[in-house]
This record gives sequence, C-alpha cells and structure tokens, in this order.
Amino acid sequence: MDARTCLQKLQYVGVLAFATVDKEGAPQVRNISAVHYEPDAIYFFTARGKDFCRELLSDGRVQILGYTRYKEMIRLSAKAEPAPDEEQEKWIRTIFEDQPYLSNVYPGDTREIGIVFVIRNAQIEYFNLGVNPIFRESYTVGKGQIAEKGYEITEKCIGCGTCMKHCPVSAVKKRGDK
Amino acid sequence: MDARTCLQKLQYVGVLAFATVDKEGAPQVRNISAVHYEPDAIYFFTARGKDFCRELLSDGRVQILGYTRYKEMIRLSAKAEPAPDEEQEKWIRTIFEDQPYLSNVYPGDTREIGIVFVIRNAQIEYFNLGVNPIFRESYTVGKGQIAEKGYEITEKCIGCGTCMKHCPVSAVKKRGDK
Repeated sequence: MDARTCLQKLQYVGVLAFATVDKEGAPQVRNISAVHYEPDAIYFFTARGKDFCRELLSDGRVQILGYTRYKEMIRLSAKAEPAPDEEQEKWIRTIFEDQPYLSNVYPGDTREIGIVFVIRNAQIEYFNLGVNPIFRESYTVGKGQIAEKGYEITEKCIGCGTCMKHCPVSAVKKRGDK
Repeated sequence: MDARTCLQKLQYVGVLAFATVDKEGAPQVRNISAVHYEPDAIYFFTARGKDFCRELLSDGRVQILGYTRYKEMIRLSAKAEPAPDEEQEKWIRTIFEDQPYLSNVYPGDTREIGIVFVIRNAQIEYFNLGVNPIFRESYTVGKGQIAEKGYEITEKCIGCGTCMKHCPVSAVKKRGDK
C-alpha cells in the first residue's frame, strides 16, 4: 500500500466524509463527492455561502474519511486552501466534467458561486480491518507529517509479559520473535 | 421523515463516520460500527486507550454522519457522555450480541478495556439528495436543539427577484406563491 493507491481507493469510494471544526470549535462532518484527484494533490468543490466553505477559509484543517467495500479505512489529515485564483475556473470545469450530476445542483452560471480548495500536503492513515491481524500504515502526500500514534515500550520494561497477555489485537511481541 | 426513522436508517447504514475535536482543536473523523440503537438513545462502544475515547471524555461533542444507498445524508449533532457505571456491563454485552464480529477484535475479557458512551439529546439533519428539489429537514432526539441554518429574507427586501434568479436550488419563491 502507498499514498497514491490510497488516493485511488478514495476515488473509487466516491462519497467521502469531510470533517472540519466550526467557529465554536465543534466538530462538523459532511459527505463530499465533488472531488478531483491529481497524482500529487486533491481538489474539491463547494459553494461559497456554505458553513463548510467558511470553516475551510477560517481554519482550513480537514480530515477526510473513506471506507472501501473491502473494509479498508483510509483517513487523510490535511490543511486545505483555496486553489489559486487563476486556476479556479480550470478546476471547476474539471470537477464538473468528472461528475456531470453537479450540473443539476449548480445549473448554468450558478457554478460560479463555487470555490475549489486544494490539498497538497497530507498525512494518510490506512487501516485494513478485513485481515487478521488488522493492517495499519501511514503515508504522506507532499510535505505531510506522519504523527506518531499508539504506544511504545521503553527501557523501563521488566519483561513480565503482562502487556502482551492483555493486548486485544496481539500487537505486542517478545523482542527477537518474528 | 422523522427522528426515529432517521435512527433506523443509520442502523441500516451500519458503518458511520464519527467526527470529534482533538486537544489541538483539530477535526478528527473515524468509522464506527459498534453502535446500539434504542428508541430514545444511541449507545456506542470504543476502547479506553484510544484518542477517540479521550476526545469524548474531555470534550464530548460529536457529529455523526451516515449516507444511505438512497442518497440520503443523515447527520446527528450531539454531546456524548459515558453511560452510567452500573449500566456499562449491560450495554457492552448488548453491543457485542448485536455485532458478533466485535468478539474477534476484543476476544474474551479484553472487551473490558472498552467503554460505552450514550447520546440522549441530539439534533438530526436529514437531506435527501435523490429527489428534485433536494429535500431537507431537521429533527430532535430528547432535548436536542435545532440550530437555524441557511438564510432568510428580511423586511429590507425590495422585491427585485435577483436572489430567486440566482439560487441554484430554487430555494427562493415569491411570497404568496405555492
């Protein structure tokens, strides 16, 4: 698995959950399908009047979640920014060509109330819940940072094995064991 | 459509996106399926060691999103709290009986690392994107508050009709028209 394959899988999922934070700091999550994938960036369309747009303009942090039919969870953490002014028209056209149904929602010139955001740097977490043990890896797109997750055993370990015995997903093994 | 039907529809969707806010105020979103529905409350299970659990304990605000195969978007905004101590065992048992696969993830006694949260008061937003025009309503569960959304036309209106002409979803009509 790698970042590019994750993006392709998100593309197949089609309808993704986009989480943002509103002005009260509360979580917000919506389904977004007006997304265009380039090998090194993700472009998505929304309308300027929406809370979603305001949250992106004022904070920009976004987490995007897709769940494939193979029980893979793909989660992307990033900061979104408006695509450059001179590219807006091009990306709007591209997204509307990718997804003709958008023309029903935004007929004719009304697509001009839209704005395209771009994500260039992202951290991707990939979980495959359909295998045993669960497979989990992280990747980056652009300059995205991989955040360290979970736990590690420090040098204070006395080798009692209690952690291994209790771990529900068998994530603890004896040093040296395969 | 009503709140109870929305909850039933979320139950059929099965895997929901749960958005929370982390300690840096950044958006977080995960797929959660360990959910049990009662007519007047939603119970869900997670493990105590997870960031998700910490975010729920320290902030508690959550937004839950489900997307049905009929292009319905159901979004629930609420504050989650741990179920009462004396009910934890009962709800853990109920959720594991509802969804036997959880026993693979948390075998034997390891389910005791889990905690059940409850949502009793919620606001539900229902969108049906599969009809024209798009249908949208809000409901409450318990004491949930309906937040006013969108725009309204004030008494300053001069009746020029510009807003109606430009609205991409035909949401503006002349006063008195059906």
